[in-house]
Amino acid sequence: MELIDTLIEARWIIPIVPKGVILENSALAVNAGRIVDILPIETAEKTYQAQKVFRFPTSALLPGFVNLHSHAAMNLVRGLGADLPLMDWLTKEIWPAEGKLMSPEFVAEGSWLAGLEMAAGGVTTTSDHYFFPKSAAEGLLRAGLRCAVSGIVIGFPSAWAKNDTEYLSLSEALIQEYEGDPFVHTTIAPHAPYTVNDAALKRCAEISDKYGVPIHMHVNETAVEVSDSLRDHHERPIDRLERLGLLNERLIAVHSVHASDEDITKMAAAHASVCHCPCSNLKLASGFAPIAKFLKAGINLGIGTDGAASNDKLDMLGETRLAAMLAKAVAQDPTAAPVFAMLEAATLGGARALRWDADIGSLEIGKAADLFAIDLGTPESLPVADPAAQILYSAGRECITHTWVDGRLIMEKHARAAYPQTDALAAVALCAQKWQSRLKN
Amino acid sequence: MELIDTLIEARWIIPIVPKGVILENSALAVNAGRIVDILPIETAEKTYQAQKVFRFPTSALLPGFVNLHSHAAMNLVRGLGADLPLMDWLTKEIWPAEGKLMSPEFVAEGSWLAGLEMAAGGVTTTSDHYFFPKSAAEGLLRAGLRCAVSGIVIGFPSAWAKNDTEYLSLSEALIQEYEGDPFVHTTIAPHAPYTVNDAALKRCAEISDKYGVPIHMHVNETAVEVSDSLRDHHERPIDRLERLGLLNERLIAVHSVHASDEDITKMAAAHASVCHCPCSNLKLASGFAPIAKFLKAGINLGIGTDGAASNDKLDMLGETRLAAMLAKAVAQDPTAAPVFAMLEAATLGGARALRWDADIGSLEIGKAADLFAIDLGTPESLPVADPAAQILYSAGRECITHTWVDGRLIMEKHARAAYPQTDALAAVALCAQKWQSRLKN
Repeated sequence: MELIDTLIEARWIIPIVPKGVILENSALAVNAGRIVDILPIETAEKTYQAQKVFRFPTSALLPGFVNLHSHAAMNLVRGLGADLPLMDWLTKEIWPAEGKLMSPEFVAEGSWLAGLEMAAGGVTTTSDHYFFPKSAAEGLLRAGLRCAVSGIVIGFPSAWAKNDTEYLSLSEALIQEYEGDPFVHTTIAPHAPYTVNDAALKRCAEISDKYGVPIHMHVNETAVEVSDSLRDHHERPIDRLERLGLLNERLIAVHSVHASDEDITKMAAAHASVCHCPCSNLKLASGFAPIAKFLKAGINLGIGTDGAASNDKLDMLGETRLAAMLAKAVAQDPTAAPVFAMLEAATLGGARALRWDADIGSLEIGKAADLFAIDLGTPESLPVADPAAQILYSAGRECITHTWVDGRLIMEKHARAAYPQTDALAAVALCAQKWQSRLKN
Repeated sequence: MELIDTLIEARWIIPIVPKGVILENSALAVNAGRIVDILPIETAEKTYQAQKVFRFPTSALLPGFVNLHSHAAMNLVRGLGADLPLMDWLTKEIWPAEGKLMSPEFVAEGSWLAGLEMAAGGVTTTSDHYFFPKSAAEGLLRAGLRCAVSGIVIGFPSAWAKNDTEYLSLSEALIQEYEGDPFVHTTIAPHAPYTVNDAALKRCAEISDKYGVPIHMHVNETAVEVSDSLRDHHERPIDRLERLGLLNERLIAVHSVHASDEDITKMAAAHASVCHCPCSNLKLASGFAPIAKFLKAGINLGIGTDGAASNDKLDMLGETRLAAMLAKAVAQDPTAAPVFAMLEAATLGGARALRWDADIGSLEIGKAADLFAIDLGTPESLPVADPAAQILYSAGRECITHTWVDGRLIMEKHARAAYPQTDALAAVALCAQKWQSRLKN
């Protein structure tokens, strides 16, 4: 018997790699933060002696969600200005609130709060985009998450930096500070095409080239962004990024709502990634991203919640469900955005975009033990005809009961309701099983 | 001190009537299944001696959701044929499964399972549309819900009835059987314009007129339905319903995705209701219903989950959130479908469509005590700047902790996660409060 830290046994394991596979009655063996084995429960119990054993007879294990675009600290300003037009919302509610509160303390505590929300929903890594990124990392680590924090560059002063020179030097220092850190990665994050000038964008490209860090940028979010770019630069945002050296395999083009067919061709050829944030795009009435086209072009797709101010929740499972459903309606094709492609986008797709997929994003031997357990044994999911489809379409983050990062349990909850006036849950579960077996026989 | 059954104290009460009101630190007094008072907590504790007192210092109370369109028993066939094209999904998966299983027992047990799922998400009444409606009522009552069950009329034989004559006579008998029942109402439910002939539709109109029951019907669901109607009847579905006597204040036009501007004008003039099922419309790629136009025309709007086979969850809060967000993107206007209009649609709008609003759909003295408590004291909602907006946009059904029907507690759950590796929840709640007060001062 080999001694290990943790053995997690489950009815199903959906490792994402290999693609489309669902392991039944299997166990994940974890030691020193890493996945050391994935094997049938029966064999596992004869092979490993674990300090801690989890048994989930009605749950599935999946790699933790990688939230590819958050503004974590904005959890502290959510609920402000619901249903306002975009510019009123920004100028009358969000910017004044941020102006009043912005500080390292605000970012650290807001990010901690957001991290706890994300942990409860199975998120194990978030790619954050906000001022005071070291404070964001502090808050997210306090909640137990991994993160990629951003060296923001934006063409107006903030509490963090006063001009392009200062933004760029703080960002480069940030990238240097966290080089090699297993829990905190960094990105260079020019805010958006319409808020960063050519010179600063070129410097961002150079920094990305020098350190190999991803470029985390809002691109093609609104129709106005595109028309303004055509007016001011006589080129579309993607063409401008190409000219300035940012359209490459390290670009994470967040939103990409108004990507044209030509944009898509160029992004695919450059091996850029898209981060899709469907809730934010709907709520701000930005439009409908052409997700089926991105997938067809072979573009690496990730999913992001955006900040709580425009979503207003950091629910990666809900976001991915919406992404799948919306893609079908937009493409007028129910076969668009199928289950495994979308579960991959929410996990490995994000990890790939962050260039972190050697360590996270799937349940494979040697990778970090970043994962969650989701209970499919409640009336929200019963009977289970197709675990992967039902995790995406039927279950919600309420069914996620345990989240681990680097083998450490960072969240647990009791997901099951009690029904004082009716029969026990066990009885309805038996009923559901009975009808499922009648269907099969 | 007046003796009553139950006193429910909460941080907020959102009664829906009066419109837009949020009561703070208030209590709901319940006796014999009815709301007998709504008053400040302080006064309530001096006025009423309750057998059972609930105290929710971080929760809101709302009227229970009225799910205006379900096929409850289909919970037993969910997860089948995910991502298939519509006709493959129906002909290769759903219809064969229903053909194999359909029976009173299947409907009763499937509806029970669905009722438990709905109760956990704050649904207190569902308007069901399925075969063997007495069995559906049995299952839904077992879960503790109220329901409106349907006398289905459809132009092909089923296990329930063999032809129009039998469908119509069984449906009329059903309506007679439940007349005056406080827990089970009925509807006449011609399936859809393309599955019911003119003669049977006329009889449905007569039955609705005779008994005053709503007409629960799929209308304008797909583009093909409209083009087929133009080809076969030389008129749009709404014009055909008008000609046959079904376009009136008792019509519940489920889906209405492809309602034209002329359809909307006619439906508004007739005081018909629309039941919007956005998840199902996305997943089956039916299209985007013009919700902002319905609201602008003053049409009574309700929300439905549709069946779990095409959704695949019966989550009214999630459905209403999606309805609000989608309406904004479709109308290209973030002010469309504002919070209170959507919370009203999910509660009183459904009750009105069912002509049940004298008893349910809002928290008013004299109405039935059908309600839920939703906890806004967790990282999913903190800090609370706007309780109504955050219930719709930030919280999810996971935050719903208690559901009552007719004053009886039918569901309770513990919604709070534990975070073994981080500080206590209380600490983050204090943090969130601190930043909220700094913003205000």
